[in-house]
Amino acid sequence: MSEFRAPVRDMLFAMNELADMSEVAALPGYEEATPDMVEAMLEGAAQLANDVVAPTNVIGDTVGAKLVAGHVVVPEEFKSAYQQYVEGGWSALSFDPEYDGMGQPMLVGMAVEEMLQAANLAWSLCPMLTQGAIHAIESYASKELCSAYLPKMISGEWTGTMNLTEPQAGSDLSVIRTYAERVDERFRITGQKIFITWGDHDMTDNIIHLVLARIKGAPEGVKGLSLFLVPKFKLDAGGNPADFNDVETVSVEHKLGIHGSPTCVLGFQASEGYLVGEENKGLISMFAMMNRARLNVGLEGVSISERAYQQALFHANDRIQGGVPIIQHPDVRRMLMRMKSEIEAMRAVAYYAASHLDKAEKSADAAVKQHSAAMVELLTPIVKGWSTETSQELTSVGIQVHGGAGYVEETGAAQHFRDARITTIYEGTTGIQALDLAGRKILRDGGAAMTAFIEEMSAVIPQLEANAELAVSAISFKEALADLRGSVTWLLENAGDDRDTAGAVSYHLLMQAGIVAGGWQMARAAVIASERLASGAADTDFMQAKILTARFYAEQSLPRAAAHAVTIRSGGETMMALSTEQFAAAQQ
Amino acid sequence: MSEFRAPVRDMLFAMNELADMSEVAALPGYEEATPDMVEAMLEGAAQLANDVVAPTNVIGDTVGAKLVAGHVVVPEEFKSAYQQYVEGGWSALSFDPEYDGMGQPMLVGMAVEEMLQAANLAWSLCPMLTQGAIHAIESYASKELCSAYLPKMISGEWTGTMNLTEPQAGSDLSVIRTYAERVDERFRITGQKIFITWGDHDMTDNIIHLVLARIKGAPEGVKGLSLFLVPKFKLDAGGNPADFNDVETVSVEHKLGIHGSPTCVLGFQASEGYLVGEENKGLISMFAMMNRARLNVGLEGVSISERAYQQALFHANDRIQGGVPIIQHPDVRRMLMRMKSEIEAMRAVAYYAASHLDKAEKSADAAVKQHSAAMVELLTPIVKGWSTETSQELTSVGIQVHGGAGYVEETGAAQHFRDARITTIYEGTTGIQALDLAGRKILRDGGAAMTAFIEEMSAVIPQLEANAELAVSAISFKEALADLRGSVTWLLENAGDDRDTAGAVSYHLLMQAGIVAGGWQMARAAVIASERLASGAADTDFMQAKILTARFYAEQSLPRAAAHAVTIRSGGETMMALSTEQFAAAQQ
Repeated sequence: MSEFRAPVRDMLFAMNELADMSEVAALPGYEEATPDMVEAMLEGAAQLANDVVAPTNVIGDTVGAKLVAGHVVVPEEFKSAYQQYVEGGWSALSFDPEYDGMGQPMLVGMAVEEMLQAANLAWSLCPMLTQGAIHAIESYASKELCSAYLPKMISGEWTGTMNLTEPQAGSDLSVIRTYAERVDERFRITGQKIFITWGDHDMTDNIIHLVLARIKGAPEGVKGLSLFLVPKFKLDAGGNPADFNDVETVSVEHKLGIHGSPTCVLGFQASEGYLVGEENKGLISMFAMMNRARLNVGLEGVSISERAYQQALFHANDRIQGGVPIIQHPDVRRMLMRMKSEIEAMRAVAYYAASHLDKAEKSADAAVKQHSAAMVELLTPIVKGWSTETSQELTSVGIQVHGGAGYVEETGAAQHFRDARITTIYEGTTGIQALDLAGRKILRDGGAAMTAFIEEMSAVIPQLEANAELAVSAISFKEALADLRGSVTWLLENAGDDRDTAGAVSYHLLMQAGIVAGGWQMARAAVIASERLASGAADTDFMQAKILTARFYAEQSLPRAAAHAVTIRSGGETMMALSTEQFAAAQQ
Repeated sequence: MSEFRAPVRDMLFAMNELADMSEVAALPGYEEATPDMVEAMLEGAAQLANDVVAPTNVIGDTVGAKLVAGHVVVPEEFKSAYQQYVEGGWSALSFDPEYDGMGQPMLVGMAVEEMLQAANLAWSLCPMLTQGAIHAIESYASKELCSAYLPKMISGEWTGTMNLTEPQAGSDLSVIRTYAERVDERFRITGQKIFITWGDHDMTDNIIHLVLARIKGAPEGVKGLSLFLVPKFKLDAGGNPADFNDVETVSVEHKLGIHGSPTCVLGFQASEGYLVGEENKGLISMFAMMNRARLNVGLEGVSISERAYQQALFHANDRIQGGVPIIQHPDVRRMLMRMKSEIEAMRAVAYYAASHLDKAEKSADAAVKQHSAAMVELLTPIVKGWSTETSQELTSVGIQVHGGAGYVEETGAAQHFRDARITTIYEGTTGIQALDLAGRKILRDGGAAMTAFIEEMSAVIPQLEANAELAVSAISFKEALADLRGSVTWLLENAGDDRDTAGAVSYHLLMQAGIVAGGWQMARAAVIASERLASGAADTDFMQAKILTARFYAEQSLPRAAAHAVTIRSGGETMMALSTEQFAAAQQ
């Protein structure tokens, strides 16, 4: 099997050239994020990912997380990797120095996150969920709660979870039944939550659950939900874990993949909880946590595809058929190029979204702040939906490159395919992302944010046209952008008052937007690489590969956007017309 | 979990209306295949599939086939299902009455096969491989071998296998090392074969291996390969299994899916073998077996998708979110409609190919015979490649419809996804099918067979145009057909002497051809359904659903063909340009 090596070269290119790290570094508070510092940080994270975390990936898959006598036990190798992650200070990377965070840009945090996800997706979910919980707590919890919990969560001493789903309440949170009873200043939380990622484990001595529940007497629906902090162990007067808080681990799911990540059913039995944010505004606090998590899950699409690509590339160079390594066969090259080009496109879009996250939070310029916030809103469902959907195809292609060996579990290619399969589901399915994009992010503002993004993307066209080597891609990108403009216009004109139509075309719009955004970043990358080569850059292999990879994307991926555009124009009438009986008519 | 119900209604429609069963039934020897008889046969097979075989599917996945003390043991439920299959006479369905076969058309056999595959893909591989072996033996083996082995293979008393692959010889069979030494009239076979489906098991008391090997002194490469019949147990004078023939089961693979199908490494240790066909012409005999198997694996793409569809449909009607069953949500309908429409399209194309198999074999008219043989050749890689690639997406969509529950193994949706993943790999990967299509099936005859097929498909256009309800689909199908013609012309003009270019575009050509062929059958189906409705057909739900499903295909699937066409025109230059180092440039 191949080793994993974090793609630091391309990550730096995506950060510095395509997500404009220099603008991010100029934001107040980010003075320390100089280019040298960032590169050193990425090299350090790469060492952790490559040498410490990556070797635990197969162990997590084969041994898995197990429920033993009511408690989840994870492989020893997971604990030791987690310890090294904590000791290296990586858990504190992007958090507030007030609570001992390192205060680095979220863009840098995203790159580090990508490496850890690629190294071991199942393991990386524990730090990722913790970061989401920290973010919700620091944004909405009282000063007392922050002081009591944040330092130890930021240091990595404790981990965090998100508790939303119940058996009857998946994509529809309005029917949550877990309830909270007030007892003095505190609450008692009772109910059952399912699909709780890293809901229990033995890597740390406390786990901080954020739980969505309804205070007794609160309104029905989502407007009666509040968010609570519920520790696994209550803290004593010294702030240390003491009495068990009656959070029972009922069971651990037997899943298709990410076996190393314990997906728990948790039973809260009058467990002590503390309100985070205002009463009945739990969904707002939860969304702050979830939006960040959605961007991170989108990034998982990039990471798991990168891992699959490296393994497929190793095999293609190693395996001889017809007297040559199979990488010399055109169709194998096609598969590898598809992986490489779409991974680089997705990475650049995800990093670009992260740079807006930093600007939205830190910019001193109110207009920049507002624009960046709108871009984060717009790009989050695109990054989440498009990158994870694409990762399904790319990890499948990773198996295909291996031929028969890819179907044998010991080869390892199948694990990436199984692991990737969750990413289009959790933190909101692709369908939910698509509705969010079409409804909240496009229809609600009359397409303003999307139109601004399309305008921004169009700036690359004259740059392509001015470059003899790239002019051919200008034509296809120009068409793709016009098509996207057309789809947005179609949506605004046809789906304003008709949720069914918006729902029917939303998946295609999301995919189209993602493919085009990826094409934009690849086109920009080609322009920059071409300039660097002209001015005598040293890393010619990287720059030449970037130009060819961008051309391949324009030839092989961009045309798929046009197919989505054509489908959008047919609307939703056909799919809404079938009766329930007619869906089963062929089986009569 | 949902029960499985064989889609007999749509199968009959595809056979009778779209594959022209009446023409097949008119062929010499098929007199008994009257419409009533065929329908009764399908109902009987459906009972076997639904009630006997389908319940073994989960057992096969969870218990699996195991190597115990050198022998493969399968679940008891598999044996009892196999017994009922044999007792019902299903194994003999399409074989020569001279050896106790029932002499039914292969088209009928294909429909029965589809039900068994959908019921339990892993289990169905045993009968399927046996049928391939029977076909090779009856076509090429001596009268003596036929008499000794065929009756018991046709009755199902013994099963058969195909032994091609070796560790160093996968897609490239020229480097096979297994050798044969002549001893009097017989041979001694020595070597190791891998990926042998149902290479050992305890369902029958003999297993007949067909083994590709090189006679000592034969030429290098594929022109030195011969085919041998090697029984697990040699026959005694009475024709019964007696002495062990030293075919050792070395190991059983631990695979992503089809756990119920033992994939064996077999060691032949001077095992006694008998030549099938001529010396050094083993590849020809093997291909006879393989072409049939390829069509059957293409059908597996249909079957496993159908199984996944039924489970997703059950869930979508059962699961309430937002106060309604999720089937009422537009994006869920989109997913179900995609499954339904592409399954019906693939089924119709596969059955159409099978009807040509019958005509090629039985027609008294030499011109029909020749044309049908050419159509089988052309359609085999399309059915194999396109249907299995599509099944990857459809079984993945099947999980997606379930949301988080789809990722939990107990739900069952994940098994279909894992099982389907082998179909694009075995019996020749999609890349091999694509090369076969572009090279042997199109370039070799200057596009004659493909052009004839395109002409045949174009006949539906005026029928669509003449029907007010369907005229809108005429436009998109006309464009799709013109695009396909354009791709074939492009290939002929640009890839005649350049294998790299043919290889680079071949995948896209295969997918384009499949999508368009599916569109053609769906358009024909809509025309027929519309006529039936006009003349007062009883099953209005089925006919109306067919029209809507065809329209959905034209709106949502056909546009993908255009994307492949655009990509083809960009050729293979970009993907051939990257150096080996440049593929890894991002990881430096």
